[in-house]
Amino acid sequence: MKISKAVSRVTDKTSSKSPGKLPASCAVMILAAGQGKRMRSALPKVLHEIGGQPLLFHILNRISETAPKAPVAIVVGHGKEQVEAAVLAQLDFSKMNITFVHQPEQRGTGHAARCAMDSPWGDAQVRAKNPVLVLPGDLPLIPGSLITQMVEPLGKGGGLRLLTCQLPDPKGYGRVVRRGKKGPVLRIVEEKDANAREKEIHEVAASIYFFHSPFLQASLHRLSDKNAQSEYYLTDLVANASRAKKKVDVLNWQSAEDLRGINDPWELAVAQKFLNERTVKAWAQKGVRFADPWSVQIDSQVELAEDVSIQSGVILHGKTRIRKGAIIGPRVVLKNVLVGEEAQLKVGTVAENSVIGAHAQLGPYAHLRPESEVGEYSKIGNFVELKKTKIGTSTSIAHLSYLGDAEVGSRVNIGCGFVTCNFDGRVIDGQRKHRTVIEDDVFLGSDCQAIAPIRIGKGAYVASGSTLTQSVEPDALAIARSRQVNKAGYASRLRGK
Amino acid sequence: MKISKAVSRVTDKTSSKSPGKLPASCAVMILAAGQGKRMRSALPKVLHEIGGQPLLFHILNRISETAPKAPVAIVVGHGKEQVEAAVLAQLDFSKMNITFVHQPEQRGTGHAARCAMDSPWGDAQVRAKNPVLVLPGDLPLIPGSLITQMVEPLGKGGGLRLLTCQLPDPKGYGRVVRRGKKGPVLRIVEEKDANAREKEIHEVAASIYFFHSPFLQASLHRLSDKNAQSEYYLTDLVANASRAKKKVDVLNWQSAEDLRGINDPWELAVAQKFLNERTVKAWAQKGVRFADPWSVQIDSQVELAEDVSIQSGVILHGKTRIRKGAIIGPRVVLKNVLVGEEAQLKVGTVAENSVIGAHAQLGPYAHLRPESEVGEYSKIGNFVELKKTKIGTSTSIAHLSYLGDAEVGSRVNIGCGFVTCNFDGRVIDGQRKHRTVIEDDVFLGSDCQAIAPIRIGKGAYVASGSTLTQSVEPDALAIARSRQVNKAGYASRLRGK
Amino acid sequence: MKISKAVSRVTDKTSSKSPGKLPASCAVMILAAGQGKRMRSALPKVLHEIGGQPLLFHILNRISETAPKAPVAIVVGHGKEQVEAAVLAQLDFSKMNITFVHQPEQRGTGHAARCAMDSPWGDAQVRAKNPVLVLPGDLPLIPGSLITQMVEPLGKGGGLRLLTCQLPDPKGYGRVVRRGKKGPVLRIVEEKDANAREKEIHEVAASIYFFHSPFLQASLHRLSDKNAQSEYYLTDLVANASRAKKKVDVLNWQSAEDLRGINDPWELAVAQKFLNERTVKAWAQKGVRFADPWSVQIDSQVELAEDVSIQSGVILHGKTRIRKGAIIGPRVVLKNVLVGEEAQLKVGTVAENSVIGAHAQLGPYAHLRPESEVGEYSKIGNFVELKKTKIGTSTSIAHLSYLGDAEVGSRVNIGCGFVTCNFDGRVIDGQRKHRTVIEDDVFLGSDCQAIAPIRIGKGAYVASGSTLTQSVEPDALAIARSRQVNKAGYASRLRGK
Repeated sequence: MKISKAVSRVTDKTSSKSPGKLPASCAVMILAAGQGKRMRSALPKVLHEIGGQPLLFHILNRISETAPKAPVAIVVGHGKEQVEAAVLAQLDFSKMNITFVHQPEQRGTGHAARCAMDSPWGDAQVRAKNPVLVLPGDLPLIPGSLITQMVEPLGKGGGLRLLTCQLPDPKGYGRVVRRGKKGPVLRIVEEKDANAREKEIHEVAASIYFFHSPFLQASLHRLSDKNAQSEYYLTDLVANASRAKKKVDVLNWQSAEDLRGINDPWELAVAQKFLNERTVKAWAQKGVRFADPWSVQIDSQVELAEDVSIQSGVILHGKTRIRKGAIIGPRVVLKNVLVGEEAQLKVGTVAENSVIGAHAQLGPYAHLRPESEVGEYSKIGNFVELKKTKIGTSTSIAHLSYLGDAEVGSRVNIGCGFVTCNFDGRVIDGQRKHRTVIEDDVFLGSDCQAIAPIRIGKGAYVASGSTLTQSVEPDALAIARSRQVNKAGYASRLRGK
Repeated sequence: MKISKAVSRVTDKTSSKSPGKLPASCAVMILAAGQGKRMRSALPKVLHEIGGQPLLFHILNRISETAPKAPVAIVVGHGKEQVEAAVLAQLDFSKMNITFVHQPEQRGTGHAARCAMDSPWGDAQVRAKNPVLVLPGDLPLIPGSLITQMVEPLGKGGGLRLLTCQLPDPKGYGRVVRRGKKGPVLRIVEEKDANAREKEIHEVAASIYFFHSPFLQASLHRLSDKNAQSEYYLTDLVANASRAKKKVDVLNWQSAEDLRGINDPWELAVAQKFLNERTVKAWAQKGVRFADPWSVQIDSQVELAEDVSIQSGVILHGKTRIRKGAIIGPRVVLKNVLVGEEAQLKVGTVAENSVIGAHAQLGPYAHLRPESEVGEYSKIGNFVELKKTKIGTSTSIAHLSYLGDAEVGSRVNIGCGFVTCNFDGRVIDGQRKHRTVIEDDVFLGSDCQAIAPIRIGKGAYVASGSTLTQSVEPDALAIARSRQVNKAGYASRLRGK
Repeated sequence: MKISKAVSRVTDKTSSKSPGKLPASCAVMILAAGQGKRMRSALPKVLHEIGGQPLLFHILNRISETAPKAPVAIVVGHGKEQVEAAVLAQLDFSKMNITFVHQPEQRGTGHAARCAMDSPWGDAQVRAKNPVLVLPGDLPLIPGSLITQMVEPLGKGGGLRLLTCQLPDPKGYGRVVRRGKKGPVLRIVEEKDANAREKEIHEVAASIYFFHSPFLQASLHRLSDKNAQSEYYLTDLVANASRAKKKVDVLNWQSAEDLRGINDPWELAVAQKFLNERTVKAWAQKGVRFADPWSVQIDSQVELAEDVSIQSGVILHGKTRIRKGAIIGPRVVLKNVLVGEEAQLKVGTVAENSVIGAHAQLGPYAHLRPESEVGEYSKIGNFVELKKTKIGTSTSIAHLSYLGDAEVGSRVNIGCGFVTCNFDGRVIDGQRKHRTVIEDDVFLGSDCQAIAPIRIGKGAYVASGSTLTQSVEPDALAIARSRQVNKAGYASRLRGK
């Protein structure tokens, strides 16, 4: 048996290696069948999210970046249908070569890997002599460079490469047992099976392996479940290789943070915090100003331009994009929103699946429900709700209004308390809501209601307090309110004096 | 004099000892008379809150759990009436055996203890030979196991047991002076009275003692106030016991965090943070998912089910209960609210003393004032306020409305801008507000007002823009608005063109 | 050459020296011409803010406190006009003796200083033999005591005093090269010009110098730009002095935090956090209670009284003043607001340039736009917006209303949904908005609108649902709504059954 080669960690986490240096072909197996009992959740473990994406997606993203053409097997079990549906629904993964393999019962990582290697997918990898990278689905923080280094070709006679890490407190992890202190790796011993001396080893196996595929397939068949947990351990393949005089390569990773696994909601939150800080710091160094970086939450897929200012407590979800010079006020919450240049979103504004034009001003406490669009230089003020509503440019809806299923032109002024009455309680032909159209240059007084379907023509003027039941022609004045009567001295009577 | 026995700290903070192992009878004295000058507050120090409860209540909760039948004396002085009233108002303490003892002037801890021991309560303890546990009222983080260990029977000839702790920076604390390095305790010396050598001692007294009661009563009479602060120090009883050849037991506690005292608002905030992190982490490990555990505030008495998801900035006060699968959105603030299974509370929703049914949806920015109840599957949307209002199931109040003193049935649709006019400016027979009843299946258009008292019958329909002054019969249509008039070409004239 | 004198840092940061001990005259030069490329912002670097004030203002504040009469030169370049305008607009600096010097191109700190010393300002300092303190404009955290110590008179034959600091990781900073380990300073070497041995030096130059002015002026002319960056280094004056056998004084500062410079938005955020924590802790120790001190943001100029309670996520900007006993609820955002004693601001209330009277209650989610004033004991409830509106005492505006350009008396009750129609779409004589006056003791029902200009007389009563187009006399009842019609059985027809 040869001495294993300890590859030291690259300090630059973004690999300098071009994809061309990857092996012509390598396969990837992701173990995603576990229940995650300690999560105590109806959601399968790998679908829990950090940075706005399921744990599993983080791994798939790294694979997609570093080995986009690799045949990928995802071993599923608990919540099989949910996991498959989630992956298939994600357009980003549609160009990847993904196969789902079912592990009908959870009998350990070795059993999971065997399910994959015994499947047609496994046979294909063995036939093609594709080496196989095996990863758990719950290590969302691994960088692309780790994958690039793991899949470097195994030398002649090599059986596998093993990822290890030094931990100050290795408790609970499988220890790497070597011949002597720095000699070749002999085996991995799980915490529950370790003796006192082995428990003192600080080098632990990080659940990521790269296998010569024929060796992998053959060895899995020889695994035993005679151990403390009565499970088939993938880690036992290391001893297997060692005994068979196969070379056991080691990639020793220095940043334990990158290998943070997730077993309960606390660990999920810690990983979320770690990822979020990484994301926020990177944006800050690219020119985004944060009033309090530790108070914001920015999903991995969000994109921010330079000279954007983000106040405290902001939450940006999904594919939100924010353009140059925009100001995102305290506690704004956005999900899949495009914010134009120099737009200003004030305290507590909430928006989802919407577009906000350049120089627009929203809030405080404006609320854009999906499919809303606010034109450039328009103003949506406090306590205003839009839903499936498109607003032109330089229009003002400054206070306490609700517009649903509406189209509003440019230079329109909508007073306080306007309501589109888009629902009349009837559902006809599956259609529930009616449309309101307000053309350019309309002036709507305060406390008006428009009973849809309705059109208010260009330049029309609607008197305050009007309930509009019919359309208004361009340039007309519409009025629908009662005349005021003042009754002298009646107030004291009403007060019961 | 015998060698004192150093009891080492249990690592498991929840005591493994059953209450049966407690001494048949022991008494508890809590020193709660101090002004807390550095708090600079009108509120007595022990009534300042962390985790949603006054400092004093945390101590009483621990006593109630570990020694529920113990006779408890609370020594009160500053803000005496407030402290007594606060304790008496708390139902949780009504089964405890609590006596208040008045310390008329603040002349030190020894003087406070003497007030208690010279009172009928003290005489009773001496007569019954009940040993006495003495605790300060401002140590809110002590665990129950500390109390259990402190009140273990004192050996024969024992005068007292002393709680000590090692501090890296002991400055400001009373040092434990022993014979030699690890010999028996000779005395406690206060910072202000300590010499240079004594100041280098890292073992400090943590202000918690357990006394043989006749010894306590007798020794207190012999205390002197000839020291730097001209006060009677309780700590001097240690030297007293030592001189009298009484055994001085020591319980050395390893977690200094548990013994954190509070002297100014900064220390109060630090204790609050510490307690809050303890609470949040415990819930996370029990299956509650937190987007950012360091941003939320969860009172000690809150109860959460597994698979609950809590977004960033959430504040949960009082006896709030959240059932399985509920989603609590960012910045939601709840106080004494019951949230049903799978209910969803969106951004910034605020509720107090209310009940939210299973599968209900609230917010963003919904506001439930006390005595509100939202039925299952109902929806309370943005900028909607409820007060003393009960909503049935599958009812929708989606936008900008105020309902006060109302009862709303099931499957009701209330349009935007609805207002219950529950107050007419008159107070008759002490009654200010009138009730609104809206029966099942009503459809209320937008911008309606109901002048209470009023009843809108089952299945009725109210046209948008109506101000209802009288009740509506079931299945009737109510309308109270003016007809619309369009005046062609008038708009330009109004614009002053 | 004489041995340099190492002045050790004072532990008490607020200098114990009276201003009288400062040199009779000393000048200050602030280098504020840099672009701050890595900020990636349209704003000049020194105008970026922490603690609610531009970086440059923090320096000027310290100068103003410690050397208020010193002639100050601010060397400006990038964004010259913006920087000058910002300083001149600040009243606090109007009593200072500030001159702006233009550095037309950025050729290093030595070049910047030369621009100042070659200007009439520089000549004046040389003539007056004023020593010159040179500071960069982006070190906002330096304490006043640092300046006081830096400007202590230089001894005979002294050329300059140098501020240094020990850094565990000195990478990127200019190293202080001494003769031997602790001998006199020979020169400063920039990171880019340092050899391997020099890079191991942990004592760095902190960009703050105090110069004998004739030496400064003369030496700047002899600087060379033959170095890695082809710039004129101010640091080279140290070697210059050393070669000329001038004494090089050293002030070694122990708190590296105080010397934190800012080069990118991440460093800006870190400095903001540091300053904010310093501010918050100081207020907590003075009697302000914070539910979560790490979640709030308090600008440097804010003033808080004791017994004020500040909940989590509060943001206080500008010259906000909060009086004794006020309660500032979660997520309240205030800018230049005066809050009276015992006032209570509930969740998410937002206010700017406004005055809130003692015992007033606002929110949750109330919004005061500039020039609003709420009287004592008044209540502004949820989803209510005020703009340029003055409210008397004991008045209630509890729900969903907008008042703009209004004056409201005392003991007024305004129902839900009230709107001041202050804009009619016309701009006459530059005047856009009309005023609404509501006198004392008025009762306004719900959903009323007042079309301004309008006056509602003392004690008047307005029926719910009224749109007021004309003023109401005192004690009159105004009503402007349609009579209700109930059509039996029509509802089912409308539902399309």
